[in-house]
Amino acid sequence: MSLLVAVTWETQPWVERFRRHLPDRDIVVLGDDFDRNAIRYVATWGPKPGSLSNLPNLEAIFSLGAGVDHLMSYPGLPAAPIVRVAQDDLTHRMSEYMVLHCLMYLREQRRFDEDQKAKRWNPDRAPPIAGEVRVGIMGFGVLGQDAARKLKVMGFDVAGWSRTPKSVEGFDAYAGEDGLTSFLNRTDILIALMPLTPDTQGILNRSLFRKLARDGKLGGPILINAGRGKLQVEADILSCLDDGTLQAATLDVFETEPLPESSPLWTHPRVTITPHNSATSEPEATARYIAQQIRRHEAGEAFENVVDRARGY
Amino acid sequence: MSLLVAVTWETQPWVERFRRHLPDRDIVVLGDDFDRNAIRYVATWGPKPGSLSNLPNLEAIFSLGAGVDHLMSYPGLPAAPIVRVAQDDLTHRMSEYMVLHCLMYLREQRRFDEDQKAKRWNPDRAPPIAGEVRVGIMGFGVLGQDAARKLKVMGFDVAGWSRTPKSVEGFDAYAGEDGLTSFLNRTDILIALMPLTPDTQGILNRSLFRKLARDGKLGGPILINAGRGKLQVEADILSCLDDGTLQAATLDVFETEPLPESSPLWTHPRVTITPHNSATSEPEATARYIAQQIRRHEAGEAFENVVDRARGY
Repeated sequence: MSLLVAVTWETQPWVERFRRHLPDRDIVVLGDDFDRNAIRYVATWGPKPGSLSNLPNLEAIFSLGAGVDHLMSYPGLPAAPIVRVAQDDLTHRMSEYMVLHCLMYLREQRRFDEDQKAKRWNPDRAPPIAGEVRVGIMGFGVLGQDAARKLKVMGFDVAGWSRTPKSVEGFDAYAGEDGLTSFLNRTDILIALMPLTPDTQGILNRSLFRKLARDGKLGGPILINAGRGKLQVEADILSCLDDGTLQAATLDVFETEPLPESSPLWTHPRVTITPHNSATSEPEATARYIAQQIRRHEAGEAFENVVDRARGY
Repeated sequence: MSLLVAVTWETQPWVERFRRHLPDRDIVVLGDDFDRNAIRYVATWGPKPGSLSNLPNLEAIFSLGAGVDHLMSYPGLPAAPIVRVAQDDLTHRMSEYMVLHCLMYLREQRRFDEDQKAKRWNPDRAPPIAGEVRVGIMGFGVLGQDAARKLKVMGFDVAGWSRTPKSVEGFDAYAGEDGLTSFLNRTDILIALMPLTPDTQGILNRSLFRKLARDGKLGGPILINAGRGKLQVEADILSCLDDGTLQAATLDVFETEPLPESSPLWTHPRVTITPHNSATSEPEATARYIAQQIRRHEAGEAFENVVDRARGY
């Protein structure tokens, strides 16, 4: 009854965490001398090709972060269920990020930063109130709904969009290709929180940005992407910022990470960059969650948060 | 049945607003030729000495902003009730400001701004979560309680302090001189929202800052003052920032406003300045509120939000 930890970084801390939370199991890592038949579970992030092969008794694959695109693109992924880590801390952190950045735009914090730098006292222009600003959340799952709820408490006018129809009390929920245009037409701040799949790769592009509301109170549409970098076409973001199709962007994720020094995003005056840490999983809570799921499973209950392989998330 | 508008700026727009909301009244301003016996109400902000004298039939004085310290220090203030404007918009704006600035500290936005400027990708240090940060709100009235509720939704550990004991469901509420030290001892981010009175003038000083928590997760105590500038001793804020008694400060109000160009606060690397616009009253809503109060009063009901002159707010 072994758990294989297949990560490319920080191997030893992960092993220690799992030993603490699963003291009755063998915890092994790639490169150890272990019996592949004994491996029941894998905990992994970005496994190297081949590392998950020949595990005939595998019962589950646990992803060590919120997304599973690193697994969906893995060649020869074993057939065992993939379990996503759902962690309250991660959800709360993501909502902190979204509320922070929506409020920075609402309250024109960048303008006040500039005013401070210039020692300029200019209280005259009153920003709109939150109720006048429409936030649209693409990806209306656990993360999107928590952010929606908190943004609504702050007063924002919030709606969600998801691939398949969802009914979320208190919110307008748009769905599918059909609902996308109406959703974008009513959106001043677009929050991207959807999973990366073949369908969503590059979806944040000029043709989508052109559909965002042009009659809002913030001087033009704003993009906040903390989902996955490959959702976005950075060349389009830059050209849309320059021709006014977008007013500003806050990006936590990028086509290439770390963001290369040569990227013009770094110095663009209307781009805010954070280093893919909007909502890092807390390793301790992740290990605890995985141990719980293993115990649930062995008590005869179903795993929670199993990935639908057809949808890709 | 006249309303006298006594303001030192923007006189005509105020007159027009009141004419719209009280079309059946005479709206007059200082300098007009009017019968002082006919004046039943005054709407004012920072009235000039003498402007409120000889109004024998005055029934109420309406303050055009949230605070009334501009009236309490007025020599020869008439005895009529002073009615404070309570406005949902103003409350919401203040809460936006408080949540924004608490989140900027929680999520170390200034560090990420510096990193972006240096094209530095540094995701390693994970900020604490909101639940690990203790916010303390001095002044636990309408504004303080709304901010408390929203900060709590964001996950912060929030408590309030007021001069007289208040019981506010869901929050630890400290009161009076006796409760102040315990309140400060458990506070990482101190929010000042109390009224300016002879008791609170200069209360935000070194001796108070020294009592703030030193064991918090933000590297030292933080001050956010959006109450009144004269609550704070700016020389103490500066020296406390420099010797580590304070970690950072966000100030919307100042001893002298506009903040003089010579103030070292403008350029202090750990000070964020906004130009006394954390929560400007929306003039339209203010005029509407005053018209409502006048109609209430004339229908035989009591004014709402009447100032207690002994307390000074």
